[in-house]
Amino acid sequence: MNSFGRIFRVSVFGESHGVAVGVTIDGCPAGIPVSQQDFNTDLERRKAGAKGTTPRKEEDAPEIISGVFNDHTTGSPITILFRNSNTISKDYEALRKTPRPGHADFVLDKKHKGFNDYRGGGHSSGRLTIALVAAGVIAKKAIGNIDIKAVLIEAGGNSNIEEAIEQAVQQQDSIGGIIECKANNIQIGLGEPFFDSIESTISHLAFAIPAIKGIEFGSGFTATKMTGSQHNDSFIDEQGTTDSNNAGGINGGISNGNELVFRLAVKPTSSTPQKQQTWNTETESVESFSVKGRHDLCIALRVPVVAEAITAIALTDLLLIEKTRN
Amino acid sequence: MNSFGRIFRVSVFGESHGVAVGVTIDGCPAGIPVSQQDFNTDLERRKAGAKGTTPRKEEDAPEIISGVFNDHTTGSPITILFRNSNTISKDYEALRKTPRPGHADFVLDKKHKGFNDYRGGGHSSGRLTIALVAAGVIAKKAIGNIDIKAVLIEAGGNSNIEEAIEQAVQQQDSIGGIIECKANNIQIGLGEPFFDSIESTISHLAFAIPAIKGIEFGSGFTATKMTGSQHNDSFIDEQGTTDSNNAGGINGGISNGNELVFRLAVKPTSSTPQKQQTWNTETESVESFSVKGRHDLCIALRVPVVAEAITAIALTDLLLIEKTRN
Amino acid sequence: MNSFGRIFRVSVFGESHGVAVGVTIDGCPAGIPVSQQDFNTDLERRKAGAKGTTPRKEEDAPEIISGVFNDHTTGSPITILFRNSNTISKDYEALRKTPRPGHADFVLDKKHKGFNDYRGGGHSSGRLTIALVAAGVIAKKAIGNIDIKAVLIEAGGNSNIEEAIEQAVQQQDSIGGIIECKANNIQIGLGEPFFDSIESTISHLAFAIPAIKGIEFGSGFTATKMTGSQHNDSFIDEQGTTDSNNAGGINGGISNGNELVFRLAVKPTSSTPQKQQTWNTETESVESFSVKGRHDLCIALRVPVVAEAITAIALTDLLLIEKTRN
Amino acid sequence: MNSFGRIFRVSVFGESHGVAVGVTIDGCPAGIPVSQQDFNTDLERRKAGAKGTTPRKEEDAPEIISGVFNDHTTGSPITILFRNSNTISKDYEALRKTPRPGHADFVLDKKHKGFNDYRGGGHSSGRLTIALVAAGVIAKKAIGNIDIKAVLIEAGGNSNIEEAIEQAVQQQDSIGGIIECKANNIQIGLGEPFFDSIESTISHLAFAIPAIKGIEFGSGFTATKMTGSQHNDSFIDEQGTTDSNNAGGINGGISNGNELVFRLAVKPTSSTPQKQQTWNTETESVESFSVKGRHDLCIALRVPVVAEAITAIALTDLLLIEKTRN
Repeated sequence: MNSFGRIFRVSVFGESHGVAVGVTIDGCPAGIPVSQQDFNTDLERRKAGAKGTTPRKEEDAPEIISGVFNDHTTGSPITILFRNSNTISKDYEALRKTPRPGHADFVLDKKHKGFNDYRGGGHSSGRLTIALVAAGVIAKKAIGNIDIKAVLIEAGGNSNIEEAIEQAVQQQDSIGGIIECKANNIQIGLGEPFFDSIESTISHLAFAIPAIKGIEFGSGFTATKMTGSQHNDSFIDEQGTTDSNNAGGINGGISNGNELVFRLAVKPTSSTPQKQQTWNTETESVESFSVKGRHDLCIALRVPVVAEAITAIALTDLLLIEKTRN
Repeated sequence: MNSFGRIFRVSVFGESHGVAVGVTIDGCPAGIPVSQQDFNTDLERRKAGAKGTTPRKEEDAPEIISGVFNDHTTGSPITILFRNSNTISKDYEALRKTPRPGHADFVLDKKHKGFNDYRGGGHSSGRLTIALVAAGVIAKKAIGNIDIKAVLIEAGGNSNIEEAIEQAVQQQDSIGGIIECKANNIQIGLGEPFFDSIESTISHLAFAIPAIKGIEFGSGFTATKMTGSQHNDSFIDEQGTTDSNNAGGINGGISNGNELVFRLAVKPTSSTPQKQQTWNTETESVESFSVKGRHDLCIALRVPVVAEAITAIALTDLLLIEKTRN
Repeated sequence: MNSFGRIFRVSVFGESHGVAVGVTIDGCPAGIPVSQQDFNTDLERRKAGAKGTTPRKEEDAPEIISGVFNDHTTGSPITILFRNSNTISKDYEALRKTPRPGHADFVLDKKHKGFNDYRGGGHSSGRLTIALVAAGVIAKKAIGNIDIKAVLIEAGGNSNIEEAIEQAVQQQDSIGGIIECKANNIQIGLGEPFFDSIESTISHLAFAIPAIKGIEFGSGFTATKMTGSQHNDSFIDEQGTTDSNNAGGINGGISNGNELVFRLAVKPTSSTPQKQQTWNTETESVESFSVKGRHDLCIALRVPVVAEAITAIALTDLLLIEKTRN
Repeated sequence: MNSFGRIFRVSVFGESHGVAVGVTIDGCPAGIPVSQQDFNTDLERRKAGAKGTTPRKEEDAPEIISGVFNDHTTGSPITILFRNSNTISKDYEALRKTPRPGHADFVLDKKHKGFNDYRGGGHSSGRLTIALVAAGVIAKKAIGNIDIKAVLIEAGGNSNIEEAIEQAVQQQDSIGGIIECKANNIQIGLGEPFFDSIESTISHLAFAIPAIKGIEFGSGFTATKMTGSQHNDSFIDEQGTTDSNNAGGINGGISNGNELVFRLAVKPTSSTPQKQQTWNTETESVESFSVKGRHDLCIALRVPVVAEAITAIALTDLLLIEKTRN
């Protein structure tokens, strides 16, 4: 459903071409300084405009509806709205009978019996990640000195991101990428196995980001080719420092104080300028078509700040739960 | 924490060397035929004994405590116990001051201030997966004709599993592997984005399985090297059949009726016969040590049935939630 | 926290004198007709204006932000805002050091360390019940032909409501009352014991309404003075019709098909025009004071529509859960 | 469903005439001393035997399955079993076609399509309150020096309990009663409105206890006959002490540091020795019948310890959540 978190609980709502999208954050402690400017940097990082991203530029100004008073959180739910503007809905009308490959058009139509807001992906649009980013801004403040940094380390299979984007623009076809996210200064003991390990919590949130196809922690899939003696990270001091970090900072689902590391696989944007084929439910035949509208050639460029946001959200919730252990 | 699921809710309890481990399943519809023999096949598949797995063999007979009457589910919580026997706890006494690399010993001691049951990994032991398998048996019955099959497709980087195991035994070092899980006959429309997509739900459960380091759906990490026109699966009929399946049967977090496909990365067993190093909190220095006790050289051999179980659990919960949509 | 419901999940946010108050409804099936006018009747019933209620009249026009498209629910979260206007915040400034008796001022200040929005009760204001009423409007549509009706049956201990209000106005002191709520056409089998019985679910929601001090189902507290043979309702036909209804339509926490009946005790409004005493944290002494601002002399007059709303919300959630049983 | 609590989460399972009933407590902090003897006093208080209670006496010895190690909680789920013995199931066979008035027989049969364990009320039996009492024992230890005390203050409408019981035995008809529960030393600030106020949390749990028909806090239903100036409790010092306690220690759903007070209405036991009437589904007519089996004439005698248990459970959960606020 549309909420996540046991204590620091994030709920999203809204559709791409509706009135607004938004987020409500429940369970945030009172007294955290929050002002409208605090959102600028992360919203800017998520915004369109760089080569390879969509020319749709929205103001993206956060409208704080509740939960902040005198520039501090109040302890009550924080709701933030982002009005939609600059939407060209008629682009999507024609697509109703030709569900776009790779998109949720087909399944949403079936699931909601045709009542879903199909314009621009509706509630399943990447537009919704702005809600995650906003919640991430609050979460980053709530987790104190934990430092989170995500970067795009590979695009289209190429670790030279600029070159990859250049090539995608030239061949007018979308590409994917790999995001690496690292977090430091995490206290030992965060994570609530059996079911709410750090990995379970982060991966649950990660797969809410559109276009994510995989996640791996520490050595990840490479671990499957290693032996135990190669893979194990030896503890070398009382604080639990390890001489390697194949575990990605997690043992048994719980933070061990070393650097948290995970990577996300981002598929190529489903909306590619290339000609594609799909079933036309009116003509009842497979037809060629081209996606119109404004789209990203490499959506992965905009994912790092979202990856940081979901990491901050996950760690904040686990941090608050850990307080109940003492 | 120790429960998962919104309607079909699975809770686990117990420690490896305590009285028993067990599982409670809440929200299971009444009238599903269940007998003690139904558990045999899957419990047998999970059991120790094959080359590369631990010689610890337990009876693993399920004791049905509640929720089953006249060989059918009653609609009330189903609790199943597995008594522990054949445990040699003194193996673990010596390890308290030398936390095993790759294990949760160190973090559990910190998190629970030394009060955790440290014997055999306690509540974080792989022993707990028997609870998942038992819940999976019920779930497989609840999901009707959905067919789930997981196999170990690679061990130690080798797709010839037998050869890989043989080599691990010879070099007396543990190895990892990759599990592939496929499910067919899934109706269109399962999955509850924004947060409870099929991928979020399955990955959340998957990372509860000890030793899992990564998960990918459909094309997964390979997708990051493809273009949109290569990756998109074209719809070719009214039922949503696609000509390829890079999506792994999922669009926008919702089942599209094609085969569900995901893969799990299993790290090499942390307990390897090889000599290792760790911090000794008594001598306050790094020391060499060897793990004693009975352990698997390739724990991945036992994971497929667990992967099926968590898939069945996830799909059952999503199936029941989907019923509320109509 | 600020959400309730397992499937049909209602979340509230906002403060009395902030930008707006609002509600998000998750898990509502798609295809339910909803228009802005649908809210008029119930919002009007809740509104101020009758003798004994506060002269603060707000527009109370619902702003539907999401989840409704082409006048039908989409299956995605429905968010509805109610802008605050006509607020006179300076009334409340002076009260910060003199916490009002019967109000949450004192405890909120302690709980949130002075960061709460204290104006007009902030997030704990009766203003928030507008969110419940809005969710109730949706719920009433979702539950089909279940018919819910709540009325004020007693005010200030008097079953002649008009007379009681008249007297309260004359003596310029606030009074309480008793609400009786009845629901018909409920199918047999709603309710999810052990913990989520109909009574547990309704009472949980009922005590979210400010000023509620008690709840009783069917014969309620009178049952304590009856014998079993007097109290038991005999079944008289195959449909479970009973010859009396001391159970209030509920057996073992589950609807039995007879009329659901419960009553709510509403205390007198805490803000009374009468002179009162409280601790002044500045002068550090007990002082007399009078509440200024606009307040209801009999808040109970406005509670029936809220009681209906929480009943509709509770029954909708239980109805959707019941669908997972089949 | 069968779990309650956000952090300190209590789950119950089992049927009256099945193998056992039990409870799992998740989220309990590690390091709390727990031994088997700790359960004796409260289990004894709940036990049958006094005049007016059923002659069915069970050993009721708690079997601690998990979560306790070296006589302290481990931080992992605590599961406690109570084996059923001394059950005479054939008493209930005859009743299948004649659903007992006041009992859940009829609704459970409909809800679970005849698959429920109908013996002795199955999962809806009062036997399940032993699970609450066991969880309450743990909770009482977890809440530190909060002192909780519940007593039966009225039986059959008579405040002389002994006399009332005597009369019930003589007239061979069951009677109800009123329980009053008080708790002291509660810190200011517990309770999580909007939805999880102290009243919502306690009432939710209270209505899980079979036979409860009503609950009121502080002045309760009497408040409806008072004026605001009579009802308001004036603060008389900095600690929030009030000169009266009509609020029952709660303002705005949050503890104010004064004594918590609530009362429960317990209906007369549905199983009365008196001749009753019900619908016989075989003969398809109303018939007279008498309940056989061993039953309590005044079940209210056994409720005080259960009332204390649910209060302790509610306060523990709210106390742990409050820790996340700081």
